[in-house]
Amino acid sequence: MAKRNGKYTVELTNGVVISCSAGVAGKKEKEGPLGEYFDKTFNDDRMGASSWEKAESALQTAAVNELLIKARLTPADIDIMFAGDLLAQCIASSFGLRDFGIQLYGQYGACSTMAQTLSAAAVFIDSGAAERALAVTSSHFCSAERQFRMPVEYGGQRTPTAQWTVTGAGAALLTKGGRGVAVKRVTAGRMRDMKIKDACNMGAAMAPAAADTLIRFFSDTGTTPEEYDLVLTGDLGLVGTQLLKELLRSEGYDITKNHSDCGCMIYDIKAQDVHAGGSGCGCCASVFCSYIMRRLMSRELRNILFIATGALMSPTSAQQGESIPSIAHLVQLSSQ
Amino acid sequence: MAKRNGKYTVELTNGVVISCSAGVAGKKEKEGPLGEYFDKTFNDDRMGASSWEKAESALQTAAVNELLIKARLTPADIDIMFAGDLLAQCIASSFGLRDFGIQLYGQYGACSTMAQTLSAAAVFIDSGAAERALAVTSSHFCSAERQFRMPVEYGGQRTPTAQWTVTGAGAALLTKGGRGVAVKRVTAGRMRDMKIKDACNMGAAMAPAAADTLIRFFSDTGTTPEEYDLVLTGDLGLVGTQLLKELLRSEGYDITKNHSDCGCMIYDIKAQDVHAGGSGCGCCASVFCSYIMRRLMSRELRNILFIATGALMSPTSAQQGESIPSIAHLVQLSSQ
Repeated sequence: MAKRNGKYTVELTNGVVISCSAGVAGKKEKEGPLGEYFDKTFNDDRMGASSWEKAESALQTAAVNELLIKARLTPADIDIMFAGDLLAQCIASSFGLRDFGIQLYGQYGACSTMAQTLSAAAVFIDSGAAERALAVTSSHFCSAERQFRMPVEYGGQRTPTAQWTVTGAGAALLTKGGRGVAVKRVTAGRMRDMKIKDACNMGAAMAPAAADTLIRFFSDTGTTPEEYDLVLTGDLGLVGTQLLKELLRSEGYDITKNHSDCGCMIYDIKAQDVHAGGSGCGCCASVFCSYIMRRLMSRELRNILFIATGALMSPTSAQQGESIPSIAHLVQLSSQ
Repeated sequence: MAKRNGKYTVELTNGVVISCSAGVAGKKEKEGPLGEYFDKTFNDDRMGASSWEKAESALQTAAVNELLIKARLTPADIDIMFAGDLLAQCIASSFGLRDFGIQLYGQYGACSTMAQTLSAAAVFIDSGAAERALAVTSSHFCSAERQFRMPVEYGGQRTPTAQWTVTGAGAALLTKGGRGVAVKRVTAGRMRDMKIKDACNMGAAMAPAAADTLIRFFSDTGTTPEEYDLVLTGDLGLVGTQLLKELLRSEGYDITKNHSDCGCMIYDIKAQDVHAGGSGCGCCASVFCSYIMRRLMSRELRNILFIATGALMSPTSAQQGESIPSIAHLVQLSSQ
């Protein structure tokens, strides 16, 4: 049974583990500091497809295929998958996963999707509703840019707070018991909205949601940031990271010593000219499912918090003058 | 614990019930055969908002508010909500539910969303991960038309197979034990794609997904259609209903005597000139959360299957020549 800790946090007591994972990425990500850790990288960001959206679908297909090979499983061995992405109507997931024939509950959490899909899959495994579940997501620089900002061909100037959407995908396999990284607790996000309207400053929009979820988690569990080897956020980037640290400090929590952000890790920010860092569902998905999972599996990391943040806006909501509500989902992971 | 029946179906053994629900709808739906059953209807489809998308958000807000009043609860009493809709990046849900401050796992299942959110909420309740969970969704004729087909102002001719997107929303409260309608089993959908590309013939695209899920459910549980008072589909409409019956008959299952479709029930199809019937997430959401739940609560209906179907396409996927993959999620409900 899952057990509630405090008002917001769910403790999983049935030994749910992430037993395998795979992260795939594009050329720019391959050239970054974590390039060697991805399970597969592609020099052609078009993935041989006829559109950027189809290329993003191909990234999800590739992540799941890599995972199945590593886990020595076939699609028929998987009970359910939880998947989503940034594209309107989540088409990267629908078309990327269509041919596997696996049961699907589609998820929408914007860039928080990796933590959300891990959370939902973990509860399903814990409950006995599934024996093997997948958590999958992706993003692609070119499909995201033309949907949310400008078509890449336009060559628009990028602002200093802008982040670079990662071309990548991640897939994780969750099972009960056995070897793997334990999912100990999950805390779902609540929408926070500080009335930020700048779609080129996602870090500022999302930092309050990350702070809200972390504070609720620490309060529910009676733990402090120091107890974790790593507090890993998804894609706050340079601006959002700074804001998160300040927001937490004002509430008495210090994460300055053990915080990392996938958006700050995946690129050499200056040399690769990505302004405030990486972003997108595929940012923390590819980093978590490759580099972080390797470090957890090898017990170099033993007890971490993974918080992925999402900006729940659309091009239409932005055009209609709406602000950007954000959300952050948390997963506590242990190398056992 | 949840228990797996066969390969695909999950049996919930911890007494999960839908203890309260509310369905709200617009003017055309109020004028239809089920008008008197909705918990609230609105004569202004604009909901006093400045855009159709904001009006759809207001419908979700209204459905949750109606539910909370009926259940005598406040937002702080709800542990988690599962919500989604048809709009790009699910903005009807994000903006409609933003101010409740409730934890949220956003869902994307197109018109299957009501059954998907009920399924996910039921597993969370069964597992102990939540004590009170909401399942919420909506659609709006004008926001859907201008996103998927033509702006309403264009006055485009509608084809005979076209369906009319319902302006409405539904919200259901799931709890453990107590008075209510029991959620007995859930079966998740798999994507089916018969290569249909006509966005004005959703019934044909979705019928194979409904047939696939029903056949897997009957096979997993060893039951037959005759054992249920009602086999209720979401929004197959006239065309999809006919196809579903034929597909099932070819596999030896007869649902002709006890099948209804929310899309065929919500309007007087001829008099209200809706061609093949109603559609949209809000179609089965508003009908299920009002009319059907009333009949279950009064034990007029005792044991039903609710299967909502979704077409997992986007305007972009259609423009890029893609076909329409579809999915259908099933929930078995009993009046206990």
